[in-house]
Amino acid sequence: MAPEGTTNGTSSAAPAANAMAGLQPLDPEEFRRHAHQMVDFVADYYKGIESFPVRSEVKPGYLRPLLPDVAPEQAESLDSILEDVRSHILPGVTHWQSPNFYAYFPSNSSTAGYLGEMLSGAINIVGFHWLASPAATELEMLMLDWVGRLLNLPEAFLHTGGTGGGVIQGTASEAVLVALLAARQKWVAKLTQGGDISQSEALSKLVVYTSDQAHSCVQKACMVAGIEKKNWRFLKTSFDTNFAIDPAVFEEAVKKDLEAGLVPAFLCATVGTTSSTAIDPLKALGTITQEHGMWMHVDAAYAGPACICPELRHHLDGVELVDSFCMNAHKWMLTNFDCSLLWVKDSKPLLDALSLQPEYLRNAASEASLVVDFKDWQLPLGRRFRSLKLWLVMRLYGANGIRAYLRKHIQLAAEFEELVRADERYEVLVPRTFALLCFRAKPPAGDPDNGRTLNATLLENVNKTGKLFFTHTVLDGVYTLRFCVGNSRTEREHVLAAWDVINQEAEKLLKGSA
Amino acid sequence: MAPEGTTNGTSSAAPAANAMAGLQPLDPEEFRRHAHQMVDFVADYYKGIESFPVRSEVKPGYLRPLLPDVAPEQAESLDSILEDVRSHILPGVTHWQSPNFYAYFPSNSSTAGYLGEMLSGAINIVGFHWLASPAATELEMLMLDWVGRLLNLPEAFLHTGGTGGGVIQGTASEAVLVALLAARQKWVAKLTQGGDISQSEALSKLVVYTSDQAHSCVQKACMVAGIEKKNWRFLKTSFDTNFAIDPAVFEEAVKKDLEAGLVPAFLCATVGTTSSTAIDPLKALGTITQEHGMWMHVDAAYAGPACICPELRHHLDGVELVDSFCMNAHKWMLTNFDCSLLWVKDSKPLLDALSLQPEYLRNAASEASLVVDFKDWQLPLGRRFRSLKLWLVMRLYGANGIRAYLRKHIQLAAEFEELVRADERYEVLVPRTFALLCFRAKPPAGDPDNGRTLNATLLENVNKTGKLFFTHTVLDGVYTLRFCVGNSRTEREHVLAAWDVINQEAEKLLKGSA
Repeated sequence: MAPEGTTNGTSSAAPAANAMAGLQPLDPEEFRRHAHQMVDFVADYYKGIESFPVRSEVKPGYLRPLLPDVAPEQAESLDSILEDVRSHILPGVTHWQSPNFYAYFPSNSSTAGYLGEMLSGAINIVGFHWLASPAATELEMLMLDWVGRLLNLPEAFLHTGGTGGGVIQGTASEAVLVALLAARQKWVAKLTQGGDISQSEALSKLVVYTSDQAHSCVQKACMVAGIEKKNWRFLKTSFDTNFAIDPAVFEEAVKKDLEAGLVPAFLCATVGTTSSTAIDPLKALGTITQEHGMWMHVDAAYAGPACICPELRHHLDGVELVDSFCMNAHKWMLTNFDCSLLWVKDSKPLLDALSLQPEYLRNAASEASLVVDFKDWQLPLGRRFRSLKLWLVMRLYGANGIRAYLRKHIQLAAEFEELVRADERYEVLVPRTFALLCFRAKPPAGDPDNGRTLNATLLENVNKTGKLFFTHTVLDGVYTLRFCVGNSRTEREHVLAAWDVINQEAEKLLKGSA
Repeated sequence: MAPEGTTNGTSSAAPAANAMAGLQPLDPEEFRRHAHQMVDFVADYYKGIESFPVRSEVKPGYLRPLLPDVAPEQAESLDSILEDVRSHILPGVTHWQSPNFYAYFPSNSSTAGYLGEMLSGAINIVGFHWLASPAATELEMLMLDWVGRLLNLPEAFLHTGGTGGGVIQGTASEAVLVALLAARQKWVAKLTQGGDISQSEALSKLVVYTSDQAHSCVQKACMVAGIEKKNWRFLKTSFDTNFAIDPAVFEEAVKKDLEAGLVPAFLCATVGTTSSTAIDPLKALGTITQEHGMWMHVDAAYAGPACICPELRHHLDGVELVDSFCMNAHKWMLTNFDCSLLWVKDSKPLLDALSLQPEYLRNAASEASLVVDFKDWQLPLGRRFRSLKLWLVMRLYGANGIRAYLRKHIQLAAEFEELVRADERYEVLVPRTFALLCFRAKPPAGDPDNGRTLNATLLENVNKTGKLFFTHTVLDGVYTLRFCVGNSRTEREHVLAAWDVINQEAEKLLKGSA
């Protein structure tokens, strides 16, 4: 059945008789009925989530043969759609909300986060500026202050603190890009001030530093911002520093670049790297960036939330020296994706880099500078009312509840670590700080690929069982298994069961190779 | 009450005894109970939405005194939170879902879009690559093909077509930025090929063209991509072409830049500009861009959906000549924000500009090139399962239902236009094509500011009543009222009532000035 737009036989005049008829797409009572039905569908999904293989086992291209090639012309029933979700979509889902999901970093769903999502989706504003929905901007400012205070961020990072403040970005990728663009703006303006060099020449001098362990989003930010590839510095780390940046290595790199006539512009440090949750020493690094007037950004996407626990706050020592700081509430702080929090000490460079005032958005409040317009703190113009999610999470669970939640995962990871350490067939590869354990099955002596095949096979065999899903990385050449506890529903019994499955599969393999 | 992290008295050791207790943040039955409660809250909100002033009338800073300065330490009840939503949040909301909202462009909420949002929020994946949830990537590919077919896009833009395909971006801002980055990559690679000039020199030569009516996101994309300000060309438009780009003006600008040794790299044309829904002539412009090997992007954020109606499809004639095309399902196609659709004829330049393969994301399916990894088609790494929203919308309403919905708005706008035209105190400023009318109250002869104060006052007085909300723009110096019909629940009675309010306020004003 070809869609109307592609047939020749269709009249090209609008069928005016039908135009006023039909669709009532937001009738409150139909909405109520259907949404209640969806709530039960979702609650049942959560209830039965352990019946699915955690990692989807479908083959590439599985879906297309199951669904029509063209959109239906006529309306279909919600029942038929939900039936298709059950039979065609859920088998293709990798179940991030399964308590047996230990892959990557978590993507927390929680009742509170979900309720906030429901409310935000219903109000469905496009909150580019204050006037587009004052509550959206003002709740966001307050929520970023709330979380900032939980993290004990310096007052300068709060909206009550003067020049800076916090803003919700979609992801940590956008946060680091926004920070880099602010830094770029600042440096290019400075370098071109005398009129001696052009904007592009200035740009070609800027150097960006980060660890070789930094998330790929730092590199992507460099690509987008047009930082020349020859000016990307991925500072070498190793087992010696548990994959944290050695400040001496950074200082040496800066010195070399200065000697070459380049401009050290930006450092992205990480608190909790993706591969192994390494923690760059903020204080030592910040001392160096301040000395050179560089912009320092901290990516604490994963580990940031944990630092609301006083016993872990010391990992942020030195944050008072940095210019911008990011953590993801959507990873490990119970807030459904997406909700990445970015704080800056001074918002002016951000505004200089990103602010525009088109006529169709002009309004009295903005022009009198009475308000914050978050469109000027981010890449896109439009934005959702995401602070509702944070607000619901913090109120429905309380800071105490959230800390208990984080500590539980850390304790479960510690118990998993004990099991690994107690078994001489395995080894822990770097010290565990949060809820991620990096380990491997010890390769036999003289193993030609130093355990890569052994562990990659173990990983694949475990994941193929569908009973859990975890992933890998490579640390200084060593193939490493990553087991990250962080799901909203993971309990001790799940971790113990996961360990059993890993052991069963390891036994088969070790037997096979023996 | 200071948060735990900021008090000195707190023990720095984790209270291990509590660590395993407490929070069950995703208990299915609690989820079910709370989410049902939220459904009723939202349905009641929709039911009573007309009782609120459409534009929030709160003053800047209204919220902070109403809420605590710090996050609560202890959990609070959902009832108390919902009570605060009622008393503190909703008064600060500008109600985009009110049937009396005629401002900016619409942000459609619908039952289907919302159900898709609910499902997406529940599954809550971070679908950076195929393996992270195969269904997310595959449904997205299929849905973009569905909508592409409804729009009668050339086969090359479909995933079944070979080199190109569609992808969901957050907003049209991100879509044009991604397109510009792909174009930049292509040109810089070409110019630096011989090794004669550096990346930065190449960048400094690139020229971007768009209309002076283009959305501010084009300028923002230039800022982000580092296109030099002296190379931004905002082609002058006027009432003569109804604010569409004159191809001769474009051709002349290109010629001049070529003569100056610059490189015409990118054109962003618009189908349905923000100020007045002007339509740039794609065919004539595309012929010129093809001649010079330029990248041509089409921003049809607002008007794109309407082109699924055969009688409007001709506005896309020439799309076969362009490189990328964007429309927002979240504006006027019943899909809750955010859901911006971007199609490209060839995905390779996108991948060249944005693709990265960090170790921790490597997997067999990606490495065998069996699958599409949408992380390489966008700025951020993470992405939600947004195609569910599109799928629900197209199935629950059918293409027929969506067309009827679009036509209804256009017909209501036409009726509003008739009312304006029939009243000699007003004038229509540009011909209406979709569901936006640009008009004004005629200024008295010799009015020193040509009706600006008169119409700005009229607009503010109408909006202050709370009975409707509409906005303004300026067209070639003329202050213009924008009245855009496009809300999911707007019926004829609402439009007629809006017209009455406008007239009442105009009468007061005109009396006052007489």
